[in-house]
Amino acid sequence: MRAERLAPIRRRYPAVKATAQLDEVLRDPQVDLVAIATPVDSHRALAMRAIAAKHVLVEKPLTRSIGDALALRDAARRAGVTIFVDHTFVFTPAVRKMAEVVAAPDFGRPLYYDSVRVNLGLFQQDVSVVWDLAPHDLAILHHVTSGRVPARVSCTGVAHFSALEDIAYLTMLYDDDFVPHVHVNWLAPVKVRQVLLGGARKMLVYNDNDPVEKIRIYDKGVSLQGDDPAATPLLMEYRIGDMTAPVLPTTEALKLEVEHIAACVLDGATPLCGIEAGIGVIATLEAAQRSLERGGTAIEVVIPA
Amino acid sequence: MRAERLAPIRRRYPAVKATAQLDEVLRDPQVDLVAIATPVDSHRALAMRAIAAKHVLVEKPLTRSIGDALALRDAARRAGVTIFVDHTFVFTPAVRKMAEVVAAPDFGRPLYYDSVRVNLGLFQQDVSVVWDLAPHDLAILHHVTSGRVPARVSCTGVAHFSALEDIAYLTMLYDDDFVPHVHVNWLAPVKVRQVLLGGARKMLVYNDNDPVEKIRIYDKGVSLQGDDPAATPLLMEYRIGDMTAPVLPTTEALKLEVEHIAACVLDGATPLCGIEAGIGVIATLEAAQRSLERGGTAIEVVIPA
Amino acid sequence: MRAERLAPIRRRYPAVKATAQLDEVLRDPQVDLVAIATPVDSHRALAMRAIAAKHVLVEKPLTRSIGDALALRDAARRAGVTIFVDHTFVFTPAVRKMAEVVAAPDFGRPLYYDSVRVNLGLFQQDVSVVWDLAPHDLAILHHVTSGRVPARVSCTGVAHFSALEDIAYLTMLYDDDFVPHVHVNWLAPVKVRQVLLGGARKMLVYNDNDPVEKIRIYDKGVSLQGDDPAATPLLMEYRIGDMTAPVLPTTEALKLEVEHIAACVLDGATPLCGIEAGIGVIATLEAAQRSLERGGTAIEVVIPA
Amino acid sequence: MRAERLAPIRRRYPAVKATAQLDEVLRDPQVDLVAIATPVDSHRALAMRAIAAKHVLVEKPLTRSIGDALALRDAARRAGVTIFVDHTFVFTPAVRKMAEVVAAPDFGRPLYYDSVRVNLGLFQQDVSVVWDLAPHDLAILHHVTSGRVPARVSCTGVAHFSALEDIAYLTMLYDDDFVPHVHVNWLAPVKVRQVLLGGARKMLVYNDNDPVEKIRIYDKGVSLQGDDPAATPLLMEYRIGDMTAPVLPTTEALKLEVEHIAACVLDGATPLCGIEAGIGVIATLEAAQRSLERGGTAIEVVIPA
Repeated sequence: MRAERLAPIRRRYPAVKATAQLDEVLRDPQVDLVAIATPVDSHRALAMRAIAAKHVLVEKPLTRSIGDALALRDAARRAGVTIFVDHTFVFTPAVRKMAEVVAAPDFGRPLYYDSVRVNLGLFQQDVSVVWDLAPHDLAILHHVTSGRVPARVSCTGVAHFSALEDIAYLTMLYDDDFVPHVHVNWLAPVKVRQVLLGGARKMLVYNDNDPVEKIRIYDKGVSLQGDDPAATPLLMEYRIGDMTAPVLPTTEALKLEVEHIAACVLDGATPLCGIEAGIGVIATLEAAQRSLERGGTAIEVVIPA
Repeated sequence: MRAERLAPIRRRYPAVKATAQLDEVLRDPQVDLVAIATPVDSHRALAMRAIAAKHVLVEKPLTRSIGDALALRDAARRAGVTIFVDHTFVFTPAVRKMAEVVAAPDFGRPLYYDSVRVNLGLFQQDVSVVWDLAPHDLAILHHVTSGRVPARVSCTGVAHFSALEDIAYLTMLYDDDFVPHVHVNWLAPVKVRQVLLGGARKMLVYNDNDPVEKIRIYDKGVSLQGDDPAATPLLMEYRIGDMTAPVLPTTEALKLEVEHIAACVLDGATPLCGIEAGIGVIATLEAAQRSLERGGTAIEVVIPA
Repeated sequence: MRAERLAPIRRRYPAVKATAQLDEVLRDPQVDLVAIATPVDSHRALAMRAIAAKHVLVEKPLTRSIGDALALRDAARRAGVTIFVDHTFVFTPAVRKMAEVVAAPDFGRPLYYDSVRVNLGLFQQDVSVVWDLAPHDLAILHHVTSGRVPARVSCTGVAHFSALEDIAYLTMLYDDDFVPHVHVNWLAPVKVRQVLLGGARKMLVYNDNDPVEKIRIYDKGVSLQGDDPAATPLLMEYRIGDMTAPVLPTTEALKLEVEHIAACVLDGATPLCGIEAGIGVIATLEAAQRSLERGGTAIEVVIPA
Repeated sequence: MRAERLAPIRRRYPAVKATAQLDEVLRDPQVDLVAIATPVDSHRALAMRAIAAKHVLVEKPLTRSIGDALALRDAARRAGVTIFVDHTFVFTPAVRKMAEVVAAPDFGRPLYYDSVRVNLGLFQQDVSVVWDLAPHDLAILHHVTSGRVPARVSCTGVAHFSALEDIAYLTMLYDDDFVPHVHVNWLAPVKVRQVLLGGARKMLVYNDNDPVEKIRIYDKGVSLQGDDPAATPLLMEYRIGDMTAPVLPTTEALKLEVEHIAACVLDGATPLCGIEAGIGVIATLEAAQRSLERGGTAIEVVIPA
């Protein structure tokens, strides 16, 4: 941290210790966990230093490569500390409700997850829109699918103003027919934060811009009449039922996240967004990046053991 | 046409001649143009018969392959008749306004076109969602870009219930950095018909579900401060101005289309959606189909001379 | 009917008999019911002639005065025919669902009904906005309350361009604390058709502009903790639960209305919108008119026996 | 202030002096202005004490009666201090834009102002919904009309749960045909904050819930063809043009208000929301209260000299 940033912080939060020296923090016996909120390229080195002494919370995206992520995992294992990845959306009441709806048996098998995450700016200096915005959806997906990782990713995108893509489209292909897709865009005239999530027996819309009814559950479904998908004519059955917007708690996600991390550190609870979630997201991003460079060719997502 | 369908039509529209015999229509000297609204697979054969005697209007998609489309073009040239493709959206006041906005010099160069065209059902029997819904956007794009055809297409999608895809994503890559993307889906719980269209100096949202304000023009733009896209830090300039929803005429698209076709047939006007538009759309669909089968690998769009 | 209007109708609907002579219709033994869709001022005289021979369906508003409405009722009783009032909204799936929700025991007592029914134009030539648009809400209210009539009405409004009010507000005061209010306006820049309907234990929003989710039911309520409304501090309990938008049939209201009328005429079913509904609406409108002329002073709604 | 509230404030804002003694504040030579944010019933007495020594900012509503408001005005005049009324909405960018649009010559004469200000809760302990929510609209109206006060007010409402009305409707009648109306409601299932404002040549919608496009200006108007409002048929001319949502500054209202008050106190600027605005609002509320008690009879708004 630049030293000139310390004075205003000390003035505003006089009860808080502020320092520009990581070592001071690492030596402080009162500190259990170090949060790393710095440019992505510095995550690996800073986290490595912190892991030696403390638990660590790292901002998303965890690292720039799957290799770095695995190195952190191994170091943390050896040091016996826990790495948390700051996937804040996972702690929002809306995403928790989404996970609950998808896990319920009446949702049917998940068919697709379609996210639009677009707005005007802000262009990042160090990462493209893929690495800036897509981690939110990949983290949500990791959580909602109980830790599944896509088999392959196809990604297209364009860098209109610099070397970094400002618009991109990711299609995640799973081993079954679940197909998530994410549209990320820094050039949109309106802010959209909307997910369509289709199951065989229920469907869901998650509109994060809606101040109250963020989750809408549709009792709608499609099924094949008869068992033969090759039958002609194809007889589809549509079920159109009620829509429900469940009441959501108004608790702030960050508060829930901090409480959860405290429970993990102090009481040994299992992290919701630990290193495995971080690795799943980074492996997917890395494959997306390679696909982008090859014009959309699907790239396998590989997580070395 | 099945003969049993004739009676109710004759009862309801007694002034209209109804027949199940194409030849009767083709022999009728009062008929200038034959409209073909049949399953796609029959388009080529029926149009070929009609071309010998009449001008022809063919429903979208024009044909199942670029080869068929070219064969129709050549036959029509030899017969001296005109082929119209029923790209109805091109005649809507909203799409006309969109074309006008994009063509104006203050729009800047087009950066992207992002369309979401989703709803629940109806599953088609003979074509996938790509061939059913994407032609609308490809036709709009052909019109709005004054006839440009993408260089390559990347397409991903999944067939959840039959052999035909029910959800698909197409990215069109142009020779410059214009990047259209289309999301088509028969499995969505809500009906969305929305296009985001970004230019370097203006942006536009086309919401076809809005009964009145279908087009919203945003006086927003992004530009690089300085000329060096490799500069660090990257200095982006955002312009945020007013939004305008222009008043649109309420004329029905079908009425405008029919009047336009009459003007072409009777007075020799140039077709807005002639065989060239049809060929551009079919060539793109064919490339998309091949990309879909190869997991998203970008496929060149080729139109043989 | 003006005779020159007959020709185009005959051309378009050749199976339909068209005449400009009411007597011809009244003499026709194949006719069971005469529908009167003419300017309001002619309703009484035309209906009186028709009643002598046929059942009658009269467009809303039934008449210009409660006296005329009662005269029609008496004449119909003597002639043994039925009068139907064309309160089409009562036959929409949305209003039927609304009535069902309000009647259910878990709705609690109705607290208020607040309707906004505004748009730009069309100015009527013969009636103010009160007599043009408010009948829709008064008819819905009559249906939803199972035939209750307000005790008093307070109405304010202004005529900006002619002698006829173009904006008006009606408050209906019932003997209990149910309080409907209607805002009608020909001068609004946007079209709004929205009703808020509050019960003690559930609440409802009816948005007729929403193509699909016209009815939204909120599991929300307010109640007093303890029994003493004079207690200080007042302890209110808010219940905030889920919102549900029930699926509605897509049947056209006019079709349901015609079927219902046929069932009444042919099979003796009880009319949903008979003369009593018409009288309730007209008595309320007449009181509203008098209140309007007196600057909002509440006027009693009186229905002579 | 209760003394036990001081400790947490001191802990959180250590740089701020906190005291439970008004006299300490009034004696402090560094204090120029005292802000009174207490229950309404205490406003008069506290403001009277403060006026003797300081400028005063009073929360809305200023007082419980026009008599109290005039007493404050007279005391402030004698003491040579300024009273500010905390009409925060007047300092929002949206309301400032609204005032600017209405004042422009192309708006035409204002025809109506229709506000819906409803939500679920919070029931106030000391004032009805009229005194709680209507002051916002009355303050906006006072500002937008450059200080006009209505001639008469008609108000209806119902107290469903206590002695205080929880739903109410106010119609303000001006000497010309401008007619504002305000719907305030603590029992609505959804939060609405919307104003329709109609001029003879332009119209405006102010939706305070919209995070970005709070103001929409419609280039729409109605006029009489010919000059004779008694002509039959009445020929109305409707002009339907574009809609524009002007970009609004994102400055916080409270910041602008504080800066404005500082400019008044330190540099002698003229208060936007001074005692005259407070008196206009309170006189209107008092008339509304009396109308409410008389079932909607219009009551004159009187401001004693």
